[in-house]
Amino acid sequence: MVKTPAALEAAMDFAIARPSRTLEATLRGKIDTKTKPLGALGRLESLALQISLIQQTESPKLERPQILLFAADHGAVAEGISAYPQDVTWQMVHNFLAGGAAINVFSRQADIAVQVIDAGVNHDFPAQAALRNCKIAHGTANYVHEPAMSAAQCVRAMETGVRLVGECAVHGTNVIGFGEMGIGNTASASLLLHRIGGVPLVDCVGRGAGLDDTGLARKRAILERAAARCPGPLTPLEALVEYGGFEIAMMAGAFLAAAEAKMAILVDGFIATSALLVASRLHPAVLEYCVFAHVSAEAGHRRMLDLLGGEPLLALGMRLGEGTGAAACYPLLQLAVNFLNEMASFDAAGVSNKSEP
Amino acid sequence: MVKTPAALEAAMDFAIARPSRTLEATLRGKIDTKTKPLGALGRLESLALQISLIQQTESPKLERPQILLFAADHGAVAEGISAYPQDVTWQMVHNFLAGGAAINVFSRQADIAVQVIDAGVNHDFPAQAALRNCKIAHGTANYVHEPAMSAAQCVRAMETGVRLVGECAVHGTNVIGFGEMGIGNTASASLLLHRIGGVPLVDCVGRGAGLDDTGLARKRAILERAAARCPGPLTPLEALVEYGGFEIAMMAGAFLAAAEAKMAILVDGFIATSALLVASRLHPAVLEYCVFAHVSAEAGHRRMLDLLGGEPLLALGMRLGEGTGAAACYPLLQLAVNFLNEMASFDAAGVSNKSEP
Repeated sequence: MVKTPAALEAAMDFAIARPSRTLEATLRGKIDTKTKPLGALGRLESLALQISLIQQTESPKLERPQILLFAADHGAVAEGISAYPQDVTWQMVHNFLAGGAAINVFSRQADIAVQVIDAGVNHDFPAQAALRNCKIAHGTANYVHEPAMSAAQCVRAMETGVRLVGECAVHGTNVIGFGEMGIGNTASASLLLHRIGGVPLVDCVGRGAGLDDTGLARKRAILERAAARCPGPLTPLEALVEYGGFEIAMMAGAFLAAAEAKMAILVDGFIATSALLVASRLHPAVLEYCVFAHVSAEAGHRRMLDLLGGEPLLALGMRLGEGTGAAACYPLLQLAVNFLNEMASFDAAGVSNKSEP
Repeated sequence: MVKTPAALEAAMDFAIARPSRTLEATLRGKIDTKTKPLGALGRLESLALQISLIQQTESPKLERPQILLFAADHGAVAEGISAYPQDVTWQMVHNFLAGGAAINVFSRQADIAVQVIDAGVNHDFPAQAALRNCKIAHGTANYVHEPAMSAAQCVRAMETGVRLVGECAVHGTNVIGFGEMGIGNTASASLLLHRIGGVPLVDCVGRGAGLDDTGLARKRAILERAAARCPGPLTPLEALVEYGGFEIAMMAGAFLAAAEAKMAILVDGFIATSALLVASRLHPAVLEYCVFAHVSAEAGHRRMLDLLGGEPLLALGMRLGEGTGAAACYPLLQLAVNFLNEMASFDAAGVSNKSEP
């Protein structure tokens, strides 16, 4: 078992190549001769190009779309950083399994499969087929006083994410999104943004699931203390060990594995993006596989996206997590792929192009 | 037959009431007790409320979604205001009928029916079941020199829009969008924005389907001349007669009829919104039924939306018309309706709410 962050980093050895751009000119030609003014489909055109380059084809297909939904608890909620009690994490897992949560509704509509993973919930679930038991521990330790997890736990979590994505790849998934549930996890994501991205903490901390002004001030003060516990610089993996969550570590591994498997990756909200922040510092090429689904209303997400050069497709003021942003934007990926495959060209349709008046 | 704009205005007598807000508190209660933080679904929550109020129900349904796609030509293209030749209008109608255009792809994906209407294309189509022949004339007159249409033509066009929506209502459609195709019609929409909205012409005129800088300057100069032809103030319907298009007039009537029929109305891009600008000046309550699908990349659309208080759901840099923005945003309406109908409440799911820690 790897025991130190440095060794952990060595373990995160992925073969993630930037997609070859050999096909780019051909693809641009195909896009530009569709029966529409040049560039008139805007972001859907760049999306079609990106997905085609990821798949290295002129006729991309979205196969077996999947959302992996990681649930875990956070020791720091003992400090009072969340508007909701910790029990909500396991209660929401039940809700996911019963099909009553927002992500269930959204993914049913878009025909996306959802797999629910116990990454480290502070609750003992009865064994059941619908819930993947990948529990690292009953929640992280309280990072105000000690590291959230050990390096060994971190590597186990990341490797779990890798393994789960590998299973999806075997089943033919080529488009994937990662969602999360964990009371207190916006706080973790804020600390990762602060310590890895160098963004002032005050700009990283938001209301999460609904803190009032007093609660927000309290959360900021607590996170200041947590950040001050490790005064020196931290590598991204050290920051993950110190302040992360098991769901975030699993997602970080999952991002890397999905990019290595050449999947198109739907990037959800603030917490999922914090996992990508870690992953992208290890392997920047992972970003080439990422489609930024939306910008969350949670303070800090826009800053995080800016750090990653991510242009979100949707801006609907959502801040729910669970992968709901990823699921909500999936029809836009379908539009991108479908217009590329199905629209007629000027020639085929007998429509005059601009250049031949 | 009504012959003057004043009489025309009298003919546009619709019973469009603002939806009763009696159900609002109940609906907000239903939304707020879903298993999610308060407000966490952002715009989808206000959308669910709006659709429910339009339908006056706690369990809204989207039935037989429909796009009416109006095609017509513009006499002013003789002045050289478009990057594409006028023949593209009828050629694109063929493309719509063959299923090869963007709107065909988008509406197939979302399972939206499309009806193509010849509102006044400068071409004689063979009679065919798939194309509704509602031709007012072979294109409008050149508004640089004379009114684009007569008041009688305008009223016939608007009444046609009303009739077509009425047919949809009979078939059970309760959600509708209007698209258009017409070389030169961004110029018409620009003039309507300028003359009805009072926005300086320079801010109303854009590149349409792809003018270069020289073409844009030329278009602006020509539209300045056109605007100067009628120096005095114009009522919205006078502006429509002077500078409109048959597709725009049909859409204006269609907006009014759809609101009267209590449909949810998907507002597409710059040209469709210009028709709504006319309609909403006659009956401001029509806006209560409108969902603003997207903000187009065409200069002027944002100004037009601001005038109408419209908050677009999507901002993808699209500028294609045809109803593509409306079709692209339709899955968001489905998400809104589905979360309201299908998500579990805190009580039903046994999840602790914020107020009971």
